Amino acid sequence: MTPTSARPIFGGAMSRRRLLGGVAGLGILGASGAGLTSCAASTADTAGSAEQVVPFHGSRQAGITTDVQDRLAFAAFDATATRREDLVDMLKTWTAAAAAMSRGVMVPGDSHADQVPPADTGETVGLLPARLTVTIGFGPALFDGRFGLAPRRPTVLAELPPLPGEILDPACCGGDIAIQACADDPQVAFHAVRNLARLGRGAVVTRWTQLGFGRTSATGTGQQTPRNLMGFKDGTRNIRSDDSATLDKFVWVGAEAGQEWLRGGSYLVARRIRMFVETWDRDRLSDQEAVFGRAKYTGAPLTGKAEFDPPDFAARTADGEPTIQDKAHIRLAAFEANDGLRILRRGYSFTDGIDARTGTLDAGLFFISFQKDPAQFIALQRKLGQHDALNEYIRHVGSAVFACPQGVADASGYWGRSLFEG
Amino acid sequence: MTPTSARPIFGGAMSRRRLLGGVAGLGILGASGAGLTSCAASTADTAGSAEQVVPFHGSRQAGITTDVQDRLAFAAFDATATRREDLVDMLKTWTAAAAAMSRGVMVPGDSHADQVPPADTGETVGLLPARLTVTIGFGPALFDGRFGLAPRRPTVLAELPPLPGEILDPACCGGDIAIQACADDPQVAFHAVRNLARLGRGAVVTRWTQLGFGRTSATGTGQQTPRNLMGFKDGTRNIRSDDSATLDKFVWVGAEAGQEWLRGGSYLVARRIRMFVETWDRDRLSDQEAVFGRAKYTGAPLTGKAEFDPPDFAARTADGEPTIQDKAHIRLAAFEANDGLRILRRGYSFTDGIDARTGTLDAGLFFISFQKDPAQFIALQRKLGQHDALNEYIRHVGSAVFACPQGVADASGYWGRSLFEG
Repeated sequence: MTPTSARPIFGGAMSRRRLLGGVAGLGILGASGAGLTSCAASTADTAGSAEQVVPFHGSRQAGITTDVQDRLAFAAFDATATRREDLVDMLKTWTAAAAAMSRGVMVPGDSHADQVPPADTGETVGLLPARLTVTIGFGPALFDGRFGLAPRRPTVLAELPPLPGEILDPACCGGDIAIQACADDPQVAFHAVRNLARLGRGAVVTRWTQLGFGRTSATGTGQQTPRNLMGFKDGTRNIRSDDSATLDKFVWVGAEAGQEWLRGGSYLVARRIRMFVETWDRDRLSDQEAVFGRAKYTGAPLTGKAEFDPPDFAARTADGEPTIQDKAHIRLAAFEANDGLRILRRGYSFTDGIDARTGTLDAGLFFISFQKDPAQFIALQRKLGQHDALNEYIRHVGSAVFACPQGVADASGYWGRSLFEG
Repeated sequence: MTPTSARPIFGGAMSRRRLLGGVAGLGILGASGAGLTSCAASTADTAGSAEQVVPFHGSRQAGITTDVQDRLAFAAFDATATRREDLVDMLKTWTAAAAAMSRGVMVPGDSHADQVPPADTGETVGLLPARLTVTIGFGPALFDGRFGLAPRRPTVLAELPPLPGEILDPACCGGDIAIQACADDPQVAFHAVRNLARLGRGAVVTRWTQLGFGRTSATGTGQQTPRNLMGFKDGTRNIRSDDSATLDKFVWVGAEAGQEWLRGGSYLVARRIRMFVETWDRDRLSDQEAVFGRAKYTGAPLTGKAEFDPPDFAARTADGEPTIQDKAHIRLAAFEANDGLRILRRGYSFTDGIDARTGTLDAGLFFISFQKDPAQFIALQRKLGQHDALNEYIRHVGSAVFACPQGVADASGYWGRSLFEG
């Protein structure tokens, strides 16, 4: 049966949209190309992207170098299972569900029998795949004594050390397992996290969640650089998804000792960064631009005319002062100032109502970065947290780190197989 | 100068997108048709809708019968101004800003001068208008002694009485003024609320906010009925935006005594309805369908085959039981069972992380309804809150009511003029 033929809605692994015809057909055919990297499906422009499928299966997990989708639903879980095999069973169930949802079909199982709870919660019936990616990561706490994983913990996988610029709220820190669901439709992203949480009942409980919107990185060549809630373009100098040499050097775990099971994976660092937008909004334009080192509207470095002009960190004004001040965000974060160090950023803006303690907006950036070693992030934040002119306007309030394993090659595999069976 | 000509980015009331050409031009021309009702611009399908402008000016406020946009940012404010004229000044500033943002241009004022804070916070530069509507309402508390408005309070504008099915959290109840911002882009909706909060500094403080996503009503004829987080289509029997006779009868305030200033306006009732999704997800399909009185996937009433088949409330099963049970949500809410009573619903789904007290998802429906008298909502909720089979799975936790004045006819007017000057 071809994916484009009309199927009754009461079927098994079926498209959530009836009679979608050629468009969904293309998407589903695309998904069968399991050898493609996730990048391959992600170069189109945003228009019509809700109809696209990002392949779940592949040598790498989708959702890392995939062109950033519009919406994020992130969840950290604590394992409550007491037996290793129960955790493995859950990961197998999760993998099958994530693969199905990525294709835009319902969670496997019976959603139509009268006398049992539906296998899928149903709120995405009729919605498009929306480029959903579901990415898993394992936190350092999972490698304690509970599941016999201690010998397999990579030395570099540890809770982040105390860092300058943070006042952490335990309610949005840590976790044994993380799920990052990204899609161009918030209901599709939320549906993924909700259904995994439901399927994980008895093995995990949800520890914290975060929704986000907007794109804060500029992977690929087809996307405009999005703006953060400070009104500045964010991600101009990010690693591009087609720059495989840089990705291999800084993002993908290679043959480093002690973490063979993680080869082809990456480390995810999540930081909930609160922005004091009311204070920022009272700052004058020239100071805002000095803080970032860029012009607000064009995104150009203060030493250039266009967004992608390379910053000239040596340039000086007529007064002899650095044109891009010493504490400017782009100077301190630049790879030129950090021995070439780079990370892949993939953050989302958030707005979570009013902070009851201060009456101010609880808004900011849910920063996500991928790197082959958490030390990359730690080094950057040690520097930024101490010196960045931005620190007057932001604070890191949540923090977590997770090891994201390689991709699931095909339907016979499951998330974490290399960890549990390798 | 025509709106389609290329303008430098450093202009005044300019499109946020440079060189958009014909598309933005159409949108801006559309906005100049101030005589159009907001419905007129809202019949297109969702594709490409981000490019559209919903006219701000008109006899009615936009955002009430406008086809529901994808995203919501709602804020309730408390007035801190002590003088009536300061409140009026703020409303004038707000009106000009809302009109500009609805057209997709920056908040009026200088956003480019070096030595002052930008007039616009800037995070929507480069984004499309996204069908933004900004709608204002005045709460009962505004009509106390502070601003001399007590004599103008319509008798029916009062805090809602205690209602069955609610356990209210004061942190998401009430407010002197409400702003409902809806757009197809969450950053555009958030930007509107944030900038009004900023412009209102000294006259108002934010009391609570709520973000939402998805559409929970089916106004117009071009939209599919969206699904709520229980997986059911929600809004099948809502009032349609082209049904002006029903809107006049149930939604728009007419010549009723004691509220002449509100003629052409409406009352907004907001209810934060928490859904216990974990419990719901464990319920079997047949019970879920009995609770609503509809089939989950097709949306058809249990007495019909297709979504828009009229429910047959008299139908009985072979056992002699009502096919749509007595406590089914659609039976209790049906106008046939409520002396023909109707309201216009315009709600959004929300997911706000984890409820720290229970470890469950803080998710549900941010219910918004418009009616010509809050008594319409009160009557329905008295009935639903007592008898609805849904009550096992939901709880009303937030509540507010606001009087939404008529529209602002043109740039010489402002929100609430009929209240303050009439």
